[in-house]
Amino acid sequence: MKFLSAFLLGNALTNAADRFLPPWQYDGTVWPLPQSMTVTQEFQILDANIQFVLTPESPQCDIIPDIFQRYQDLIRSHFKIASSSSKKLKFSASSAAGIIETIEVKIINCENYPSQNMNESYTLQVGSPTPEKVELTASAEWGVIHGLESFTQMIHNIDYRPSMNILHWHIVDLQSFPYESQVLPELSFLGSYTPLHVYTIHEIKDIIEFARLRGVRVVPEFDTPGHTDAWGPGGGPKFLTPCYHNGEPDGSHGPINPIYQENYDLMRKLFTEVNEVFRDSYLHLGGDEVPFGCWKSNADITAYMAKNNLTTYAQLEQLWVQGMVDIAHDLKKNYVVWEEVFVNGVKISNETVVEVWKGRSGTWKDTMNAVTKSGHKAILASPWYLNIISYGVDWEGYYVIEPTDFNGTAEQNKLVMGGSAAMWGEFVDGTNILQRIWPRASAVAERLWSDKSVNQPGPARWRLNEWRCKMLARGLPAQPAIQNPNVNPNFGYCPYPFDPFNNAHYLF
Amino acid sequence: MKFLSAFLLGNALTNAADRFLPPWQYDGTVWPLPQSMTVTQEFQILDANIQFVLTPESPQCDIIPDIFQRYQDLIRSHFKIASSSSKKLKFSASSAAGIIETIEVKIINCENYPSQNMNESYTLQVGSPTPEKVELTASAEWGVIHGLESFTQMIHNIDYRPSMNILHWHIVDLQSFPYESQVLPELSFLGSYTPLHVYTIHEIKDIIEFARLRGVRVVPEFDTPGHTDAWGPGGGPKFLTPCYHNGEPDGSHGPINPIYQENYDLMRKLFTEVNEVFRDSYLHLGGDEVPFGCWKSNADITAYMAKNNLTTYAQLEQLWVQGMVDIAHDLKKNYVVWEEVFVNGVKISNETVVEVWKGRSGTWKDTMNAVTKSGHKAILASPWYLNIISYGVDWEGYYVIEPTDFNGTAEQNKLVMGGSAAMWGEFVDGTNILQRIWPRASAVAERLWSDKSVNQPGPARWRLNEWRCKMLARGLPAQPAIQNPNVNPNFGYCPYPFDPFNNAHYLF
Repeated sequence: MKFLSAFLLGNALTNAADRFLPPWQYDGTVWPLPQSMTVTQEFQILDANIQFVLTPESPQCDIIPDIFQRYQDLIRSHFKIASSSSKKLKFSASSAAGIIETIEVKIINCENYPSQNMNESYTLQVGSPTPEKVELTASAEWGVIHGLESFTQMIHNIDYRPSMNILHWHIVDLQSFPYESQVLPELSFLGSYTPLHVYTIHEIKDIIEFARLRGVRVVPEFDTPGHTDAWGPGGGPKFLTPCYHNGEPDGSHGPINPIYQENYDLMRKLFTEVNEVFRDSYLHLGGDEVPFGCWKSNADITAYMAKNNLTTYAQLEQLWVQGMVDIAHDLKKNYVVWEEVFVNGVKISNETVVEVWKGRSGTWKDTMNAVTKSGHKAILASPWYLNIISYGVDWEGYYVIEPTDFNGTAEQNKLVMGGSAAMWGEFVDGTNILQRIWPRASAVAERLWSDKSVNQPGPARWRLNEWRCKMLARGLPAQPAIQNPNVNPNFGYCPYPFDPFNNAHYLF
Repeated sequence: MKFLSAFLLGNALTNAADRFLPPWQYDGTVWPLPQSMTVTQEFQILDANIQFVLTPESPQCDIIPDIFQRYQDLIRSHFKIASSSSKKLKFSASSAAGIIETIEVKIINCENYPSQNMNESYTLQVGSPTPEKVELTASAEWGVIHGLESFTQMIHNIDYRPSMNILHWHIVDLQSFPYESQVLPELSFLGSYTPLHVYTIHEIKDIIEFARLRGVRVVPEFDTPGHTDAWGPGGGPKFLTPCYHNGEPDGSHGPINPIYQENYDLMRKLFTEVNEVFRDSYLHLGGDEVPFGCWKSNADITAYMAKNNLTTYAQLEQLWVQGMVDIAHDLKKNYVVWEEVFVNGVKISNETVVEVWKGRSGTWKDTMNAVTKSGHKAILASPWYLNIISYGVDWEGYYVIEPTDFNGTAEQNKLVMGGSAAMWGEFVDGTNILQRIWPRASAVAERLWSDKSVNQPGPARWRLNEWRCKMLARGLPAQPAIQNPNVNPNFGYCPYPFDPFNNAHYLF
């Protein structure tokens, strides 16, 4: 009842200009901004029971019913918020020009699984050629998702070009090993925080399917040879390198020991399973922050290097990385490595993708330049470490970064695959991870998804605020995007207060 | 079922030392640390149906049934987590020495409402004089709460000295006026974000009662004459000062205009109602950040000052503050002001409490010294602005601050009433406020509650982590306290992962 009275009260005010703030109003912005968009002044009335119809010539892609159901629920949820008795929702005060009851969806072909070459394009026409018509044409399922998303965010006419959308899942690290392997069960049995703190293969497959229904790929990272402390107990006594002090093992351990064939065999066994579970054509091999001190101290390694004519520790690192790359090749995977592998001079093949994560303050440009100059594809993560929090509005800094801004050639720019908004786990868990990611990640999303020219923080401010409020209405606890000054239209609040103890719905 | 199997698995491990991390274990720490505590090596078994019994000679304070119910639920929730079939919970592997089935509670007298002089002391004896006995003796209801809280956090023998626990509610500000006054309805009608974004008097009374049941006072702050933009529309055309430019009002407004009697009348009407609603003997009058520029520009004010022999704007500020203090006096309230009122040389009475909030980097010490030297009571807020977030563990910085550390005399130290952990609202709402407050506020709580000597961050680290995990188990989304290194016992994780979408219970 409170919602209904809010709308009545809004209408009863004889002069809204008397209020300190004007009534909250959705402007129907779409976030991220589509590549091309034409908005006319006419608005249509939308029927609460809007139907989605797949044209007869379209293939029956298996995820379409689920997509239709989700967006029907989402569109209907707008009606629930407005009024329990209203069957029609007017999106604007303008006069109607036909009631929209159907969205006609045409698909060219089914791709079934998100992939590197997935076609996400679509065109959407609302109110044209006739006022009650909506036509959505998509190359594949993913364009249907994006088209319905944009429609739901209230846009009339969109043309869209393909882009990538990936969950890069850094699933294990030095702190714990939660990936519950069935072929190497000791890794998680001994390496997880507790037996409850694991991801079973069943759960992982659920996540991958949830992502697939939304056009999102899932790329796993098993970071080696560093960042592997938690692998130790399950990996066995020869797995991690014992560090020496005064000629004796001192009890501490370093990176994986690259001189034992057993360790490569273990990784092959693991990756063979991972290949079956994750399915994506890409695998992230890690390779960051490999300290050489422990290797240097270890007598067996010293002996091995002498025997095999290795003179530097970068060469030892290369031995391990090459081993991982060989496994990836055999499994027909593409692979990504962190920048140190490249910067340390480890010999890597041309198709290796290098992820740049250091030099937040700006020197990432040098690394991007070097990586692409040498012909490697690059992913930029450095300026978008969402885990690095600070007081105030920080997403504007994310928003204005342009990944190709490193004075490279047009050829080099083509090698920039995209970017990554990282939420590292040192200080987040179920209590705060969603709030810390959203809406700040949305600023990065627009940078990577929309046109390069869409980079002015000013207009982005209110659009992001509106998008944030929509996320809230869908049940995602996205935190305030901007502060709450009394400067129209820079409102930080949303029309409906969020109740953390009464928020069980989730409409994504 | 997952919880039960976790415990079985824990027992099945033949050698827990094989695991990367030892099994998670509660050590039964109490946070904040009581003033005096003796722990013996013996532990008792606790019965799930533990009863609380009020001794016959104790008065029947009205909130006791609610306290007993809450702590019974809380204690029983430990059993639910451990096992659905277990009727007894063993808190330690040691042999039992009698089963605890009853806590005998003795109260000296009922105070009914939290107040400045509330007596919160208690003594608690567990397993003495006989193994199955627990005796809790409290001066008033509040000691029963604290005693049961400590018991639930697993301590054997405590002696407690009184302390304060207050919600300082800064309920209105320049951004909006959400306090729904019944005598001055236009203030919120025109000044709130939306008609939904209000606190009704009914809701406020609910909050005050919720707090009372937990021994917490609620002190409101109506901050004037600055920070009042949102009061403008409801306050009327003479309320805020019109700012002048080139001899004409320029449309913008400044602080409340202190030259009109109507404005003092409005405040008296408001405070009379506030006095009925809030009941606490204290009222916070605000008085921070009053800019003088708008007053300076206003021709009417210039004329007024000339006519009334006022030569400085601090004197004008004093005129307003004096007006507010007069109202407070008439309502028999004690009052608090922000430091600027003192620092600006506004003449204030001896009983005025000054809250110090500036000089975070350390110069607050000078202000605390000046305030107490002049005989005023002081509250310290400066070093504990929880809204100022940064990457990493910041609560250790809060923990080591000692409010009396300003080289004052013993007399001055007695004037330090306590401190305040502030969560200002610019960037928080229902999505993230609980996470941002807890557990960081707990570090401040121990500083203000426990003995001065309890100030070593090292031991505090694991104790705070344990307390954080208990808050989580009670349904409060307290975020990670420390990071997740693999260094025992500095664990950042908790035994049961927190699910933000399935967390409707709240056991506080």
